[in-house]
Amino acid sequence: MAPSLEVQEEETALPFSNPTHTNEAPPHKSKVTVVGSGNWGSVASKLIASNALRLASFYDEVRMWVYEETLPSGEKLTDVINRTNENVKYLPGIKLGKNVIADPDLESAVKDSNMLVFVTPHQFVEGICKRLVGKIRGDVEAISLIKGMEVKMEGPCMISTLISQHLGINCCVLMGANIANEIAVEKFSEATVGYRGNREIAEKWVQLFTTPYFMVTAVQDVEGVELCGTLKNVVAIAAGFVDGLEMGNNTKAAIMRIGLKEMKAFSKMLFPSVKESTFFESCGVADLITTCLGGRNRKVAEAFARNEGKRSFDELEAEMLQGQKLQGVSTARELYEVLSHRGWLELFPVFATVHEIAIGRLPPSAIVRF
Amino acid sequence: MAPSLEVQEEETALPFSNPTHTNEAPPHKSKVTVVGSGNWGSVASKLIASNALRLASFYDEVRMWVYEETLPSGEKLTDVINRTNENVKYLPGIKLGKNVIADPDLESAVKDSNMLVFVTPHQFVEGICKRLVGKIRGDVEAISLIKGMEVKMEGPCMISTLISQHLGINCCVLMGANIANEIAVEKFSEATVGYRGNREIAEKWVQLFTTPYFMVTAVQDVEGVELCGTLKNVVAIAAGFVDGLEMGNNTKAAIMRIGLKEMKAFSKMLFPSVKESTFFESCGVADLITTCLGGRNRKVAEAFARNEGKRSFDELEAEMLQGQKLQGVSTARELYEVLSHRGWLELFPVFATVHEIAIGRLPPSAIVRF
Repeated sequence: MAPSLEVQEEETALPFSNPTHTNEAPPHKSKVTVVGSGNWGSVASKLIASNALRLASFYDEVRMWVYEETLPSGEKLTDVINRTNENVKYLPGIKLGKNVIADPDLESAVKDSNMLVFVTPHQFVEGICKRLVGKIRGDVEAISLIKGMEVKMEGPCMISTLISQHLGINCCVLMGANIANEIAVEKFSEATVGYRGNREIAEKWVQLFTTPYFMVTAVQDVEGVELCGTLKNVVAIAAGFVDGLEMGNNTKAAIMRIGLKEMKAFSKMLFPSVKESTFFESCGVADLITTCLGGRNRKVAEAFARNEGKRSFDELEAEMLQGQKLQGVSTARELYEVLSHRGWLELFPVFATVHEIAIGRLPPSAIVRF
Repeated sequence: MAPSLEVQEEETALPFSNPTHTNEAPPHKSKVTVVGSGNWGSVASKLIASNALRLASFYDEVRMWVYEETLPSGEKLTDVINRTNENVKYLPGIKLGKNVIADPDLESAVKDSNMLVFVTPHQFVEGICKRLVGKIRGDVEAISLIKGMEVKMEGPCMISTLISQHLGINCCVLMGANIANEIAVEKFSEATVGYRGNREIAEKWVQLFTTPYFMVTAVQDVEGVELCGTLKNVVAIAAGFVDGLEMGNNTKAAIMRIGLKEMKAFSKMLFPSVKESTFFESCGVADLITTCLGGRNRKVAEAFARNEGKRSFDELEAEMLQGQKLQGVSTARELYEVLSHRGWLELFPVFATVHEIAIGRLPPSAIVRF
């Protein structure tokens, strides 16, 4: 596709400046560290690296904190990334950009940076934040790419809030229809940045992520954007049930639509500031569509329905996902607690029914009984 | 599914009253005629018939105007429908309900009715309306299930407006993610009724169509609901291009989302009364999803992209659709005229690009260049 070509031209056309010089940081330039180096973290680093090179307002060097591992070859993962410019373990075959520097030391990775991109598995965020207290610059801005915050009885525990509270910094979010491997090969995609107050910061994040094949839009609605990223997994399970029952596209579209309405209603009931228009953004309807077309929540739910609920999600997960856990199932359970705690069960038939089917209280076909 | 069973129980449980007695019409009861008997018209008759039997506010008998045909057997289509209770040509294998009376005479089919359901191919509507002038009751209410109005240079020519103007009556619309054959076998689905002023009438239409497997919601937005039904076909062609280019679900979701936003923006620019919330209804996001997952516009567009635009839509249509025409391609052309006429081309990249690809001015891959 033409857009991707353009990017590569820029990358090769621009002279590569020596990373070391970027440590003397004049205040007007921003320095970026990506905290995390999994599949999505590596793709994010690639996007950011191409823009850091291209734009004068950023230092060329992008640090990527890597949880160090020793590869079967005996080499350290960071050494291989820095030598081959590739995350051979989590994003093989994709060049990250020569200006991405893998760093196994969390403190050294963040110390010069004023823009931190959090993209780790959500269960590690709290621990990482605790280690970063007192180790970051005073003017740091953060953004979270982490989907899958926890929904607790009293309401959801937002990852962006967790980061803000532990580090006393502002934290935006970036969510959307973002299958990492498709963005890695520069297939056209979109994302949404959610910000709280500061429009300028939001635009800076948009600049840092936007490429001709990755279109980013900012909306002033952190909660709305972040909730979309979690709640859509519950709807994807409902969509998977419909697939497993072979009810066809009409029914699937109907369940996705009702699910989207429940996502919107739930978000607005918890956070009155949430905007209707956020659900028309990539983080809303587009991410929902991607997740309900592909995605492992949908896939395992389809198998669950095909087995008429006779095989549990745990069993199917173990078999189909090599022990990985489905976010959708646990989110549905947590969501159910919130709904019953607040007396909202009747208002959210799809959310409630997904959990009752998942625990075997109702048959999969109940997903279309209203 | 349980819902469909419920309906059948009702149908068999309720006594069938003799259609002839329903001609002495006390004013408080409504009498319904379905004008049209194709695939969707037959399914609509089935839905209506089950409610006409169940609800005291409607006469049991539902007249269905049938464009008379002689079947290969030599029998008249209307005779076979009235004997077998099945539209053997357009909806074989599905019982319409004993209270559906096929009538080949348009005048006699409508003369006692105060509720007319229009569900013919859109090119026949004008002719039918002309024949109905002076032949209908004074208190008639109409609803149009016809998707695919024409978009003329000065703006779209709405079918509901056409009916209202020719017959001097109020006309609602019913649109949604409605694949007729899936509703015929009572798979769960939804629809949206769009009404202008009178909420009571809208609720009456909702009553008449709603079944446990067909959920209908009313919104005060005729134009928004009706425009969704047409514009979504253009987005489906864009989605088909993405499928043909094998760009994956991310890209497809992004194009569907941008398409939905363009549907919304275009409708609101033409009719300021159009509501944002309408696009969250079945006629909006759900119909878009169904059409972009299945649907012949998507299918032929996929083939067009696979052939890198080397084979024209006319050629592919003839080959794939036995001479049927694609609404999406002609709508895209008409839409393009409106957009260039008003200087809006830059505001609607998906709408504009679909047409420019369809006429060979741009390659299919241009669908993702913004």
